[in-house]
Amino acid sequence: MNKIPFKGVIAYPVTPFDDSETADILLFKKQVERLVTNGSHGIAPLGSTGVMPYLNDSEKEAITEATMQQLAGRVPTLVGVSNLTTDKTMYHAKFAEKAGATAVMIIPMSYWKLTDEEIIKHYDAVTSKISIPIMAYNNPITGGVDMSPSLLKRLLEIPNVTMIKESSGDIQRMHYLRKGLGEEVAFFNGSNPLALAAFSAGARGWCTAAPNLIPELNLALYNAIQENNLGKAQSLFYKQFALLKFIVAKGLAGSIKAGLDLLGVGGGGFKSPLKPLSENEIVELDSILSSIESEVYQY
Amino acid sequence: MNKIPFKGVIAYPVTPFDDSETADILLFKKQVERLVTNGSHGIAPLGSTGVMPYLNDSEKEAITEATMQQLAGRVPTLVGVSNLTTDKTMYHAKFAEKAGATAVMIIPMSYWKLTDEEIIKHYDAVTSKISIPIMAYNNPITGGVDMSPSLLKRLLEIPNVTMIKESSGDIQRMHYLRKGLGEEVAFFNGSNPLALAAFSAGARGWCTAAPNLIPELNLALYNAIQENNLGKAQSLFYKQFALLKFIVAKGLAGSIKAGLDLLGVGGGGFKSPLKPLSENEIVELDSILSSIESEVYQY
Amino acid sequence: MNKIPFKGVIAYPVTPFDDSETADILLFKKQVERLVTNGSHGIAPLGSTGVMPYLNDSEKEAITEATMQQLAGRVPTLVGVSNLTTDKTMYHAKFAEKAGATAVMIIPMSYWKLTDEEIIKHYDAVTSKISIPIMAYNNPITGGVDMSPSLLKRLLEIPNVTMIKESSGDIQRMHYLRKGLGEEVAFFNGSNPLALAAFSAGARGWCTAAPNLIPELNLALYNAIQENNLGKAQSLFYKQFALLKFIVAKGLAGSIKAGLDLLGVGGGGFKSPLKPLSENEIVELDSILSSIESEVYQY
Amino acid sequence: MNKIPFKGVIAYPVTPFDDSETADILLFKKQVERLVTNGSHGIAPLGSTGVMPYLNDSEKEAITEATMQQLAGRVPTLVGVSNLTTDKTMYHAKFAEKAGATAVMIIPMSYWKLTDEEIIKHYDAVTSKISIPIMAYNNPITGGVDMSPSLLKRLLEIPNVTMIKESSGDIQRMHYLRKGLGEEVAFFNGSNPLALAAFSAGARGWCTAAPNLIPELNLALYNAIQENNLGKAQSLFYKQFALLKFIVAKGLAGSIKAGLDLLGVGGGGFKSPLKPLSENEIVELDSILSSIESEVYQY
Repeated sequence: MNKIPFKGVIAYPVTPFDDSETADILLFKKQVERLVTNGSHGIAPLGSTGVMPYLNDSEKEAITEATMQQLAGRVPTLVGVSNLTTDKTMYHAKFAEKAGATAVMIIPMSYWKLTDEEIIKHYDAVTSKISIPIMAYNNPITGGVDMSPSLLKRLLEIPNVTMIKESSGDIQRMHYLRKGLGEEVAFFNGSNPLALAAFSAGARGWCTAAPNLIPELNLALYNAIQENNLGKAQSLFYKQFALLKFIVAKGLAGSIKAGLDLLGVGGGGFKSPLKPLSENEIVELDSILSSIESEVYQY
Repeated sequence: MNKIPFKGVIAYPVTPFDDSETADILLFKKQVERLVTNGSHGIAPLGSTGVMPYLNDSEKEAITEATMQQLAGRVPTLVGVSNLTTDKTMYHAKFAEKAGATAVMIIPMSYWKLTDEEIIKHYDAVTSKISIPIMAYNNPITGGVDMSPSLLKRLLEIPNVTMIKESSGDIQRMHYLRKGLGEEVAFFNGSNPLALAAFSAGARGWCTAAPNLIPELNLALYNAIQENNLGKAQSLFYKQFALLKFIVAKGLAGSIKAGLDLLGVGGGGFKSPLKPLSENEIVELDSILSSIESEVYQY
Repeated sequence: MNKIPFKGVIAYPVTPFDDSETADILLFKKQVERLVTNGSHGIAPLGSTGVMPYLNDSEKEAITEATMQQLAGRVPTLVGVSNLTTDKTMYHAKFAEKAGATAVMIIPMSYWKLTDEEIIKHYDAVTSKISIPIMAYNNPITGGVDMSPSLLKRLLEIPNVTMIKESSGDIQRMHYLRKGLGEEVAFFNGSNPLALAAFSAGARGWCTAAPNLIPELNLALYNAIQENNLGKAQSLFYKQFALLKFIVAKGLAGSIKAGLDLLGVGGGGFKSPLKPLSENEIVELDSILSSIESEVYQY
Repeated sequence: MNKIPFKGVIAYPVTPFDDSETADILLFKKQVERLVTNGSHGIAPLGSTGVMPYLNDSEKEAITEATMQQLAGRVPTLVGVSNLTTDKTMYHAKFAEKAGATAVMIIPMSYWKLTDEEIIKHYDAVTSKISIPIMAYNNPITGGVDMSPSLLKRLLEIPNVTMIKESSGDIQRMHYLRKGLGEEVAFFNGSNPLALAAFSAGARGWCTAAPNLIPELNLALYNAIQENNLGKAQSLFYKQFALLKFIVAKGLAGSIKAGLDLLGVGGGGFKSPLKPLSENEIVELDSILSSIESEVYQY
């Protein structure tokens, strides 16, 4: 088993819905194919972008299986299996492993704020049921709990937990991870507007939905960092900054679907209560995408 | 239909679990019986205290039906039916109405932060499916979205939405509700440490799990307010303040279950990842309950 | 020495400036006379309302002396003497005592956030120089440091520190003060929109600039509390709530001066960079004052 | 006039006090000499590190003059002249210009939170009195007001205001400054733990007290950025990260003075209420400095 099977740009597909608000697997496969064709280094279905918590079990399973079929091992996969209860998290983790996932991503979802002990037992329980690696995901805004660096350190002592995804949006957290947990810790950035700062701080990869819309710029930023060319990375980052801000401010799922519609790919429908962007927001997104395109062609 | 069927102390039962982490309906009925016997003016199953989001559908339905059977109409019931998706919220609301609930409580749960328009459509959709009243519930901490007074005003224009439960813990919100939305708006306080201030501000009722442990003090506070006796209300509030702080700080579900164990009633087990209070916390709770008891007997 | 010389409504005058941006002592005396004539139980010059930190030493001294002359002992006085340095705080405290102040108010001003030890030494040093009582003032927003209840408890062990003014705007702080520090602790509320909740929680007095504009309502609220008539207090509070919110939201000094202009008393000028309210804000204030007047005359 | 006379590492000296709590000019000159000898690209007396707001006028003037005498034009100087009132800010700005300062730094200090209009008039008034450039300084924590990027944009339209120092500690602010205000805007980073991220984002310089203790590492980081060597910059940043965190967490003035004592230079005394670090804190600082030294010598 490769304990840290990811690096670079890990792309997050959306989950498109049909008119009856059920996951549209055909369109999903098409969107996933685009992501891998465009050069993403990994694919992560059932993330926040994929509105995982809004899906029922059969939708989650269909999305997982569709991802494996479509990719057929071309790039590694990271499947979201988080759930409020430990029991359901174990269930989905086992399903993902059996379906062929390279790794699973788990955020400790919370309605009631969990204690550190509760979080550790939660990961421990899931670990006992699978043998693929786990990426522990910290996102106080969607998950409702903020895992401190010292808690993350304890999680990394659980054998399968080998990677951390940080989405708190605070660059200091990454400095702590690197300095406090050691240089070999594999941490990934999940905050789009932090892409430049996180790579500068030593992030191993970038978990992002942006490759649905601007894959060349996302990959070029990573490549510039690999080449140790900060000036080029900075320039590439500012070219995509307006889009990265927009998709976070307006919500990843809605923004990416609107962008896929604008690009002619088709984003698919929504599951209530989630709704599409407003007309004005779509116009703003169109303008951002157009100005990126004209700038990049010049470049 | 009574559009505002509640006032006074609305008691929230826990959901006890058995060794296999399934809802223990027998113990639940016993706990509910205690609440009504002790004088609560209403019963609200499947609230945050009842860890509703952690239950599967059959558990939610069993709890709803058990409540109706046990109460047999003695006091009005307020059943929690919130869900991330609109579809599932409608499903549980219809179930509650059919089972005989007096009203349902709905908080706009969010993984992705909902816009005002999304929230309004969500309530609108549920309203179209039931004819009993809806209490709109604002709790930024558990629900993840903070409904502004102006949004609450718009919600109250939906016919069935006739009551508001405020749990943000900010007394100014209640001042705004009363002054901004009009004196006839029925708002209920869901923040225990705010009980005195909220009643002083004109709250019609108090949604609380505390009657599981100290029903006499909770009811006496409400009665003092009804008698327009502020001095007595203040004195009664400070007698229970330490407990109200404790159950909020340590989590309602865990604190109430520990208290029920200490009182010999039996709180029941937990569903993972939620765990019982620590030994030290239980000792602290025991000490608070003992000092209340000795003080109240003197009184 | 009366260790707790205040209760009820403690009124805060503004500091009016002339065209050369120097304190206008004549107009100040006229404004102070109105406050005492209208029934305020105490007068507190050189508070936040009086923009004390913007005055030079000779202005502070002139305001202190003018207050004593004008009042001539009719009501007790509470003079603000806070300063960034301990040395200057001692200087102004000694000046106030010599001029005849009943007590001084001290907030631990901070550019650099002070530690608890630094704050205690600061109060200790001032205490050693005067023999009149000190009101310790907590206001995280203007002062930049938030004194915890446990720090306030330590401050109250210093002999002269006998009173606490809480302006954090959080009613829970007052519950902690009353319950944690004991029923005999004299705490005063400095947050206008919290007036009803704070009196309900047991505040001994209300430190407020509102009596410059609506003294009858402010005093009537206190009297209703003294009569143990919560219903009346609630009704009186909501009559003045819009004004209390406005003066806090727009800034006390600017709002009160604008109100004094509207009432024909004259508020006086400002010291740069502080400026008057905008035209729109003044129109809004006028409308609030008019609707209060028409409501109160009916009452 | 050079409109943007700074780049690189701008070093902030402390203000040492003697036993009578008066500024110790002799020791100050010695400390300034060290900073310039060690290679700092600019010197900024009377900053937060220099506890400027705690000094009286004659101390501020003596520090300003001592800086000019000691440097004798070897590197540019940036003198802090901020004050609560516009009048005093103009006074100190004129003094600094006359004394020979290259530029002045102004933060809109606030007791009462200033409106955007008040802030603009404040800078406008000062600008009219001097002809050297102004660095507008944003630091919500010490200054009490948070200047939005759109306000900063308006400030930059005032002729003399040519530079921005950002100390909010949020890297997104710098992205906005660069992207929103244009590539030619000269922004400087004032948050030590953000040094790597800010340089990566395009900051022109780093305003820091750290060169009092570890000048080689601070300058080496800047040089690595100039060489477009991100890998080297990252490595150098993590070598100094523990110290940068420490001096911010414990307060710049106290930390730097303790460090100067440990290095044998002498940090000088404090002005009350500010006090030295505790014994434990000094031990912690000593350990951080020692581990840096051993690591750097190896390097």
